[in-house]
Amino acid sequence: MVSFTVTFNIEGGEVRTVQIPGETSLLEAARKADVALDAPCGGNGTCGKCRVKILSGGVVRDEGPSRHIRAADYAQGFRLACQSRVHSDLEILVPAGALAYQTRIKIADLTVTRDREIFAGLRKSLAEMELGGDLGLSVVSAGLSAPDLGDAEADRERLIRQVAELTGAAEGDITVGLHALRKLPALLRESNFTLDCVIRRRGEKLAILNLYPASHNGSSRAPLSFSDTPPPRLAGLAIDIGTTTVSIMLLDLETGEMAALGSAGNGQIRYGADVINRIIESARPGGLERLRTAVTGECIEPLIRRICERAGISPDRIYRVAVAANTTMTHFFLGVPGEHIRLEPYVPAFFHIDTLSGESLGMGVHPGAEVLIAPGIGSYVGGDITAGVFSSMIFRKAGPSLLIDLGTNGELVFGGSDFLMACACSAGPAFEGGDISCGMRATDGAIEAVTVDPETMIPALSIVGADQGWKALGLCGSGLIDLIGELFRCGIINAKGKFIREDPGPRPRVLHDEYGGGRYIAAFPGESASGAEIALTETDIDNFIRAKGAIFSAIKTMLAVVDYPVDAIEDVYVAGGIGSGINMKNAIRIGMLPNLPLERYHYIGNSSLMGAYAMACSREAARLVNETGRGITYLELSSHPGYMDEFVAACFLPHTDSGLFVLSA
Amino acid sequence: MVSFTVTFNIEGGEVRTVQIPGETSLLEAARKADVALDAPCGGNGTCGKCRVKILSGGVVRDEGPSRHIRAADYAQGFRLACQSRVHSDLEILVPAGALAYQTRIKIADLTVTRDREIFAGLRKSLAEMELGGDLGLSVVSAGLSAPDLGDAEADRERLIRQVAELTGAAEGDITVGLHALRKLPALLRESNFTLDCVIRRRGEKLAILNLYPASHNGSSRAPLSFSDTPPPRLAGLAIDIGTTTVSIMLLDLETGEMAALGSAGNGQIRYGADVINRIIESARPGGLERLRTAVTGECIEPLIRRICERAGISPDRIYRVAVAANTTMTHFFLGVPGEHIRLEPYVPAFFHIDTLSGESLGMGVHPGAEVLIAPGIGSYVGGDITAGVFSSMIFRKAGPSLLIDLGTNGELVFGGSDFLMACACSAGPAFEGGDISCGMRATDGAIEAVTVDPETMIPALSIVGADQGWKALGLCGSGLIDLIGELFRCGIINAKGKFIREDPGPRPRVLHDEYGGGRYIAAFPGESASGAEIALTETDIDNFIRAKGAIFSAIKTMLAVVDYPVDAIEDVYVAGGIGSGINMKNAIRIGMLPNLPLERYHYIGNSSLMGAYAMACSREAARLVNETGRGITYLELSSHPGYMDEFVAACFLPHTDSGLFVLSA
Repeated sequence: MVSFTVTFNIEGGEVRTVQIPGETSLLEAARKADVALDAPCGGNGTCGKCRVKILSGGVVRDEGPSRHIRAADYAQGFRLACQSRVHSDLEILVPAGALAYQTRIKIADLTVTRDREIFAGLRKSLAEMELGGDLGLSVVSAGLSAPDLGDAEADRERLIRQVAELTGAAEGDITVGLHALRKLPALLRESNFTLDCVIRRRGEKLAILNLYPASHNGSSRAPLSFSDTPPPRLAGLAIDIGTTTVSIMLLDLETGEMAALGSAGNGQIRYGADVINRIIESARPGGLERLRTAVTGECIEPLIRRICERAGISPDRIYRVAVAANTTMTHFFLGVPGEHIRLEPYVPAFFHIDTLSGESLGMGVHPGAEVLIAPGIGSYVGGDITAGVFSSMIFRKAGPSLLIDLGTNGELVFGGSDFLMACACSAGPAFEGGDISCGMRATDGAIEAVTVDPETMIPALSIVGADQGWKALGLCGSGLIDLIGELFRCGIINAKGKFIREDPGPRPRVLHDEYGGGRYIAAFPGESASGAEIALTETDIDNFIRAKGAIFSAIKTMLAVVDYPVDAIEDVYVAGGIGSGINMKNAIRIGMLPNLPLERYHYIGNSSLMGAYAMACSREAARLVNETGRGITYLELSSHPGYMDEFVAACFLPHTDSGLFVLSA
Repeated sequence: MVSFTVTFNIEGGEVRTVQIPGETSLLEAARKADVALDAPCGGNGTCGKCRVKILSGGVVRDEGPSRHIRAADYAQGFRLACQSRVHSDLEILVPAGALAYQTRIKIADLTVTRDREIFAGLRKSLAEMELGGDLGLSVVSAGLSAPDLGDAEADRERLIRQVAELTGAAEGDITVGLHALRKLPALLRESNFTLDCVIRRRGEKLAILNLYPASHNGSSRAPLSFSDTPPPRLAGLAIDIGTTTVSIMLLDLETGEMAALGSAGNGQIRYGADVINRIIESARPGGLERLRTAVTGECIEPLIRRICERAGISPDRIYRVAVAANTTMTHFFLGVPGEHIRLEPYVPAFFHIDTLSGESLGMGVHPGAEVLIAPGIGSYVGGDITAGVFSSMIFRKAGPSLLIDLGTNGELVFGGSDFLMACACSAGPAFEGGDISCGMRATDGAIEAVTVDPETMIPALSIVGADQGWKALGLCGSGLIDLIGELFRCGIINAKGKFIREDPGPRPRVLHDEYGGGRYIAAFPGESASGAEIALTETDIDNFIRAKGAIFSAIKTMLAVVDYPVDAIEDVYVAGGIGSGINMKNAIRIGMLPNLPLERYHYIGNSSLMGAYAMACSREAARLVNETGRGITYLELSSHPGYMDEFVAACFLPHTDSGLFVLSA
C-alpha cells in the first residue's frame, strides 16, 4: 500500500508528522500524530469542528463545499478532516479552534470558587445528619526502643509491639502494609525510632498503612480556614468523571475541609464528544485500554499530582477516594468493557461494585487507599446521578423534588423520601456548548447572560472573567438560553427557531449564507477574544431546541408516569456544567423548564462531585448513596409509549402548548 | 574524565560494547555491558572466577601474576576482571567458564525427578496430619438467564444472583473481583451465559475471583497420575528462593498433585555469590530495585510462565503462592531494604509478614492470589529453614533430631516437639561448588561420587547424567566430600589438607605449580566435557575444610548449649543443594557430620520447597509453620563464647580430636 507523509502545523507553533497509508482519513492521521482534533460527532461529518486547512503538497479526496465548509473557505483549502482522505504527502494547518477541548489542568482558586456556598451548604447538611468521623483512620505517634544485641527483634515486630501498647490492640491483630514496611528500616533510623503511623481500624483489626517521621512539635494543628488550609495528614479525594470534564477535590479527612480543587478535560474526547462514539471506539482492538488511559494516565493521574503539589502533600497520603461518573465513564475508568450498554437490551457489566484498592487502580494514591465507586442504576443513569441525589438531599425530603443534571447529557430524578424515579434523555451536549458552532463551557470568555434590545437588535453581553479583561469567546449554556429566549421575545426568531425579522442596520445582526441558513451575530470579529465572529446559526438553534425539548418532554413524561401535576414539584435542583449564570426565567420562557415559581429553582453546581465528597468523608454517607441508589426506579424513556409525542411537541419555542409557559412574574 | 571503549567478546559469539571512564574495573565495565561475569567473592580478588583474556588494544592496570593467574597465562593476556582497571580501549575475550551461573530455566521431568520419593513422603505426612482441603477455594458452574428488555439487570448483579442461589450465600456477602469483572461481559455472551466461577469463601463472605467458559462436559475429571496430570483448575505455587537457585513447583490445589517443577539460577548472582555482597549492592543507589528485579522479573516471572505453559494453564489460574527463602532473599524479593541485616545489631526489617496479594507483587499470578511468606527467625535463619522444619517434621517428634540445610550457607536446627533451636554458620558455598576452582552444582556432568585406588591413585568417578553420555564437568558437594575423604584415606593429603604423597606414575595425578601449591587431577583434559583438566587444589581443600569445620563446630556448639550428647540425636535430616549422592560415611570420615549410625541419616532434598508446598496446600500447615517459627530459639553463633575454638579444632581432617570419627562400620 502506498504510504504518505502528513505534517500537521498546529497554530501556535507545534509541528507533528506522521506516515500513513493512502485513503486514511485526515482525522485518523491526526490521531496517529497525536493531534487532538475536535470531533464531537465521532467523525461522521455532522459537527463541522475538525476544520483544517491544506497548506501545500497535494490532494485529498473529499465531498466538496458543504454547510460546514462554505465555497470561499473551500477555495482557500479548508476541509473537514473527517471527510477527507489522504492521496499525497500533505502540509496541514490546524487552527487552534479545531483542537479538542484540551486536557489542560486547571487548579481552582479556593477563595473565589463559585461552588463555595454550595459546598458549605452540603457540609452543613452532613453535620446535621451527624455523618463523618467514622472512617477508622488515625495517626498514632510511636516512640520505639532502639535495638541492640540483647534485643534484636526485627523492625516490623518492634513497631507492632509499640503500636499494640499505644492502642490496646492485640499484636496478632496488627498488620503492616508492604508500602509501609519498605519505608520502615530507613525511617526508623533517620527519625531516631519515633514515627507517625497512619492506622486504619476495622473492628479488632488494625492496619498500619503508612509511616512518616514524627511531627517536629507535639502541638495540635493551627486553626483551619478555607483559603489557607495546612497540608492534610489524612487526605481523601472526590472525583467526578464527566464525559467532557474531570473534576477532583482533595480533602482533609480529619477536618472535612477542601484542600485543593482542580479540573481537566476528559482526554477521551478525541474519540467523540458523547458516550456512544466512545463505546464504539472501545469495542475496537485495544480501544478499551486507549479509553481507560485517556482518562486515567492522561488526565486523572496528572491532575491528582497537581492538586497534591498545590496542597503540599505526597499522593501517598491519600487514603480514601470516591468516584462518581456516568455508567459508561465508570466502566472505562475501571477498564471494564461497556459495549453492551448501547446494544439492546442495554445491559452494563455492573451497577454496583465492591470497594477497590488504590493498588488495583494505580492512580498514585496510597496502595491501601479505599476506592469507592458511586453505583449506577441504568445504562444511562450512573453514579454521578446517585451521588447527585445524595448531595441534593432530595431523598430526605417528604415532598417531591426534581433533580435535573445538565451535563453532556441530561438526567432527571423525581421524588423524595417515599420514592425516587430516574430517567435519561438524549439532550446531547448543547448545555455545555457542544453541537453549537460557537458553544463553549462556562469558563473565561463565555457569554453567560444576554439581553437583546428589541428595537436595535443589539445584544448586551455578560462575559465570564470580564472583570479580568476577558472578551467574548463563545456562548455557554446559560448564555444560549438567554440569547434564544431574547431572540424569541424580540420576534427575531419564530417558534420553530427560524429567523423571521430582517435587520436593516448599518452593521446588520442577522445574516444569511449562500445555503439560506440564517445567523445572529452576538459579537463581530473585532469584539471577540479570538478575532472571529460569534454567531448563533439556525442549525445551532435547532440543536438547542431539540436539547431543551428532550429535557422538558422527559419531565412531563416522568410526571405522567407517577401521576403528579407539574405544580406538585416543591423544589427543582439544577446541576451540571451549564453554569451558575443560568437564568431560570428565560429557561422557562423557551420551554425548557416547567413554569414554577422562581423561588423553587436552585442551582446546585457539580452535584456529582459533591456526592463523591460525601462518600469520601463518611462511610455512612457512602452506605446511604448505595442504599438510595438501590431504591431508585429506572424509567427507560426511549421505549416509553408517549415520550416521542411529548418530545415532538416540545421542539418548539416554547412548546406547541404555549399556555404551559405563561410566566406569572 | 577520559572515557574508553571496552568490547566484550563472549565465547560462543555474542559481542557487547560499553563506554566507561578510565580507572573503572573490568568487572564493573562488564556489569555495565550486561555481561554476567561470575564474581562469587563480590569482586575482591579472592575467588579467581572472573578470568578474562585481553585480546588487543591496550593496557589495564593490575597486580601481576598470582595464584589465580599463573605466569604463563598472564603472559597470554589472562587477567582477573575485578583486579584490572581500564587504561585504554580494549578488546576482551570472556571465556564461557567466566560467566556466572546463568538464570537458565530448567523444567524437571516429573517422571524421573529424584525428589519424587521425598515428595510422596511429605504428602503421606500431610495426609496423616489431616491437613489440606481448608483453602476455601472452589469452582462453581453457573448457568444464568439471558437478559432482555424486561430484565435488564447488569451482568455482575445477574451473576451474583445466580451464585447466591447455587451456594446459599447472601447476595450482599458476594463480591466480584475487578479481574473477573473485566472478563464478565464478553465471557457471558461467548459461553451462552454459562460460566465456571472460581470462588473463595471466608466465613460468610464469598469472593468471585475468576471466570472461565463452562467445561464442555459435566463429568468429573480423569483419574490423576503423577506423570500425566491434567491442567489444574485451581493452581498453587511453592517457591524456594535460594541464594543460588530458585525452584518453583506448580501444584493442583484440588488434588495436591505436582503439576510441574522448574528451576532457574537466581539472577542476583552477578552481584555476588553470597548474601553479604548482595546486601552491600542493595545499599547502593537503585541497588535494592536491581536486586529485586534480578530475582523477580528476570527469574521468577519467566519461570512461572514456563511451568504454566508446561502444565497447560494460564498463570491467572494460580490462586495461592507460598514463598520460602532466607532472610535476605525474602527482603529483596519483597523490595524491602535489608542492609541492617549485616550491621550490628543485625536487625532485619521483619521476621513475619502478613499475607500479600498477587496484585501487590505482580508475578503474573491471579491478582487476588494469596501470597504467603515463610517467617524468618534470625538475620541468617530465614523462612527456608522454618519451612524446612515443617517438611522434615522434626517439630512433631518426641526425641531430638538435627536438620542440616547445606545451601549457599549452612543452617542447623536441633530439637523436637519440646523445643527447637536454630543457628547459622558461615559455611560458604563450598557444598554447592562455590569457592572451589572446579566446583559445580549437582547437575549434569557433576562428579557426584569418587573412589580412589590407594596404590595407583587413579579415581573412579560417578558422573550425573553419565547414562545420557555426560562426561565430567566439575565436582559437586557430594563428589568433593568423597574425593577429599578418599585422598585422606589413601594418605595422599594430610590432616591439614596438604599433599604429602608424591606421585611417580607416567601420568602423575598430583602436581605442584610454580607457587608451590599442589593439586590432584580428577580428570585429565582429554577426559572432561570441557577439555580442561578437573583438579582439586590445596586452596580448594582448604576452603572445603573450613566449610565442613563450620558445620561440625556449629553442631557441637549447639548440642553443648542445650547439654545433649551427640549420640542423643535420633535422626539427622540433610537438606539442600549438595545432592542426593551424598555419602554419609565419607562425610563422617572427613569430620563434617557427627559419628552416628548411618541409618539415622536421611537426605531430604529441598526441604524449603517442600515446606512451601505444604503452606500452599493447606492453611493449617501455613499456620503451623508460623507457629513453629515463633517457637524456635535463635542462637547467634558468631557471638557465642567457645564457638571459635570449636571451629579451629574442626578445621582438620577429620578433627583435632580424631577419636570423634572412628567409624564403627
